[in-house]
Amino acid sequence: MLELPGSAEPAAAPPVLAEVVRSGFVEGRHRGSLVLLAPDGTVELALGDVTTPVFPRSANKPMQAAGVVRAGLDLSGERLALAAASHSGETFHRRLVAQMLAEHGLTPEHLKCPPDLPLDPQEREACLSSGAARDRLAMNCSGKHTAMLAASARRGWPLDSYLDPGHPLQRLIHRVVEESAGEPVAAVGTDGCGAPLLAISLTGLARAFRSYVLADPGSVPRRVADAMRAHPEYVAGTRRHDTWLMREVPGALSKTGAEAVQAVALPDGRALALKVEDGATRALGPVLARALSLAGVDSPVLDRVGRAPLLGGGREVGRIRAAF
Amino acid sequence: MLELPGSAEPAAAPPVLAEVVRSGFVEGRHRGSLVLLAPDGTVELALGDVTTPVFPRSANKPMQAAGVVRAGLDLSGERLALAAASHSGETFHRRLVAQMLAEHGLTPEHLKCPPDLPLDPQEREACLSSGAARDRLAMNCSGKHTAMLAASARRGWPLDSYLDPGHPLQRLIHRVVEESAGEPVAAVGTDGCGAPLLAISLTGLARAFRSYVLADPGSVPRRVADAMRAHPEYVAGTRRHDTWLMREVPGALSKTGAEAVQAVALPDGRALALKVEDGATRALGPVLARALSLAGVDSPVLDRVGRAPLLGGGREVGRIRAAF
Repeated sequence: MLELPGSAEPAAAPPVLAEVVRSGFVEGRHRGSLVLLAPDGTVELALGDVTTPVFPRSANKPMQAAGVVRAGLDLSGERLALAAASHSGETFHRRLVAQMLAEHGLTPEHLKCPPDLPLDPQEREACLSSGAARDRLAMNCSGKHTAMLAASARRGWPLDSYLDPGHPLQRLIHRVVEESAGEPVAAVGTDGCGAPLLAISLTGLARAFRSYVLADPGSVPRRVADAMRAHPEYVAGTRRHDTWLMREVPGALSKTGAEAVQAVALPDGRALALKVEDGATRALGPVLARALSLAGVDSPVLDRVGRAPLLGGGREVGRIRAAF
Repeated sequence: MLELPGSAEPAAAPPVLAEVVRSGFVEGRHRGSLVLLAPDGTVELALGDVTTPVFPRSANKPMQAAGVVRAGLDLSGERLALAAASHSGETFHRRLVAQMLAEHGLTPEHLKCPPDLPLDPQEREACLSSGAARDRLAMNCSGKHTAMLAASARRGWPLDSYLDPGHPLQRLIHRVVEESAGEPVAAVGTDGCGAPLLAISLTGLARAFRSYVLADPGSVPRRVADAMRAHPEYVAGTRRHDTWLMREVPGALSKTGAEAVQAVALPDGRALALKVEDGATRALGPVLARALSLAGVDSPVLDRVGRAPLLGGGREVGRIRAAF
């Protein structure tokens, strides 16, 4: 037998959160960690590791949006929702981003998010079929980048370096994330869109979401939560679980992040945050639906969120199902 | 704390095979199982669970191709390679599939694989941009389906039911898989293309690949292995690791399968089979390159196979790296 040098195995493996079932046979598993907070903020359920920092990716966007408002940018309604969005790149998203840029004397050339196709597969195919190319407006973070640029323009801060972690706006967002999560930022990386990416624990992330729905009406965090909940189609898109949940579960604040991160807060203070260890977005729906059911949510939307069929020869022959 | 009913946790978690590293921070992990056989066929390395059956998906294709030849279909060269292919849907693949259908008096309407876009992302975008729609020829398994139809036509077996596990051709393939793997098929499911999907262990899969490269010249398994190795661009495509490996590692037989399965045999009888537990194809390259390196392969192609960069703002800010 071959001898392997000791590998860098981390702490214990997190539990299986979802199974990939084809023709009744479990052909794969998605592990991960999940924390559920009770209305009073105490930990009601913890699976896996919920205290080690993770990159929340776009689940940090409500906090980044709070940062741009704190910097003095007076956003509200659809515009504030879009500032906190991972939008699908549908026409109404791209149009409002272009309009926001114009309203602040900016152009698409100011954006430093990479040119991209829309996040939504249907929209992406439609774009390609119509002969459209990748562009910065279509990139799912373009609303956030526009808000960051607009806040910088308003304050007279440099526009060229708005993604630099040392930029005044990013330093402010760093403080907002720490205040929101109630813990220090453990690492600073670069997100897919080029923006600074701040690591916090899943428990800190759930705490942040909880604090946004419980904040005083009119406060910055509450304004962000209210705008997202009033305009969920601008936070995600027509065919996205964040939109469905915020439309159909009264008072829910829901935001997904790349690499299979999800956070949700309910208006009574219950909150959850989860991450699938392997980053598989396909497992999010079933895992999230099960987590919300454990949190006491009882709504037909959970069936829609949790549905993840697997096909064989064009017919449904299996599914990804929650396993906790 | 919430009490959860005992979940159906399987055996111990398999080890971490790859880490997702962004900005120096490990933001995700891919676990899995891997077996490496020595030239004499004994197990040299076993990580995770290599004896429980898995669905090898398209890694079973060399055995399915051997089945159609055993049924009496006289295929060779590019045609036999394409019968064992998960092709990229490039023009030369689609053209040869159409030609093979015509050669056997068949039409694309006989195919029961679902209409699809090409597997290769670049080819897929080019198809959409040119206004092409999903079709059965472009589906990555269309060569295999064509070979199954042609074998059935040659034997006078029904064409309509060629995907039925009880069809004479599928019963023959079932026997070929069991003989090749040296173990019984543990489950029969439906593959993404609609064909019967036969479960064997990773050890059985590695054994099968080993037996194909060691088989007597001119025998059916060896004819399949030789055709695949002589025409690797027909087995995969221009931008695919199976093609690169079979071109650059002398005598290697390499075939990937959906849900992150991979099998490789080397001409001296070394062989490996692996599966990433979560099915993430993105982890295959780094894991496979590391496994081949452990198997003693020393080639610059491993750098190319193992490269899995992660982007931030369009720049490389991390990568997926092997962790064993």
